[in-house]
Amino acid sequence: MEALKARILADGRNLGRGILKVDSFINHQVDPTLMMEVGKALADRFADVGATKVLTAEISGIAPALLTALTLNVPVVYARKTKPVTMTDPVYVEAAPSHTRGVDTFLLVSPEFLNPGDRILIVDDFLASGQTIDALVRLVRHAGAELVGIGALIEKRFEGGRQQLLHLGVRIEALAVIKSMEGEHILFEDDSER
Amino acid sequence: MEALKARILADGRNLGRGILKVDSFINHQVDPTLMMEVGKALADRFADVGATKVLTAEISGIAPALLTALTLNVPVVYARKTKPVTMTDPVYVEAAPSHTRGVDTFLLVSPEFLNPGDRILIVDDFLASGQTIDALVRLVRHAGAELVGIGALIEKRFEGGRQQLLHLGVRIEALAVIKSMEGEHILFEDDSER
Repeated sequence: MEALKARILADGRNLGRGILKVDSFINHQVDPTLMMEVGKALADRFADVGATKVLTAEISGIAPALLTALTLNVPVVYARKTKPVTMTDPVYVEAAPSHTRGVDTFLLVSPEFLNPGDRILIVDDFLASGQTIDALVRLVRHAGAELVGIGALIEKRFEGGRQQLLHLGVRIEALAVIKSMEGEHILFEDDSER
Repeated sequence: MEALKARILADGRNLGRGILKVDSFINHQVDPTLMMEVGKALADRFADVGATKVLTAEISGIAPALLTALTLNVPVVYARKTKPVTMTDPVYVEAAPSHTRGVDTFLLVSPEFLNPGDRILIVDDFLASGQTIDALVRLVRHAGAELVGIGALIEKRFEGGRQQLLHLGVRIEALAVIKSMEGEHILFEDDSER
């Protein structure tokens, strides 16, 4: 998606060690108009999978997942990383190791919002090592729901997450695929290479 | 806002001790269509204040703030409660005591996203004791930006937050004002009583 790639090149910052700073338009300050375009683009790529719900993880997945769900006209569920006081009943929990922070994050979903019969489209801001998305996939399975697709705004292809998720046999789409981040450069894969 | 009040009566649950469970449509599972209506309603109530940016706190403020900002065609900034690896420079920090959890939450904003000259509309899901919003107001002041309004989806009038914030001299709007939550009841204030 050209608008997203252009924005990454203009406003993203390669902090080294594979860390991409996009907090001026995605995950601290958010550009709602870009996010609406992103939501529409993801909804378009998964228009035919019959998703009944979008699932993401707080925090930075919420904005793109919400606007994908708005376009698809389905609810969105965000897995919580902490247990709010309103979460009183037993919940599904999965651990997602975070390689940027070195600790496990727990992802919690109330069983009332993930049901057998649900067709789940997972949306997150990044597809990097695939660990967070893999934890979301396990939540979907625990609930007996069906995974129908995985969408991300930005894929760091060099972190291998896509390879880890291929065995799931569902479509995996990323709107901007980064091939390498050597030095200060951010190099995208051509859409023809996908 | 009638659609929100009707939804609270249909799907909200009064857990007692002033705790309202709305996680089937606001803060775990989210109804994007309702949230779009909410965003438009808040944008409408603050259409004349000249906001250049919407400010909220993660996590549950993100969805309504994003759609308010989308309608107003301005960026949205969400204050972080944890420090991401991409937040490398000094930040503004304020503590917000949480009466539901009994601990202080820190709210962090990068100075690059709150500037003198910015006219800030604060949006959050709840206006209860006003502590979170008050911390956001202090962040706005530290940055030398101007506060132009405070909007919430749901106000728990009986927790007194509005009284705490009145001295700020800005418009405070809530789309559903709850007067009392005695027993199992959820009693709204009539719009005429506002």
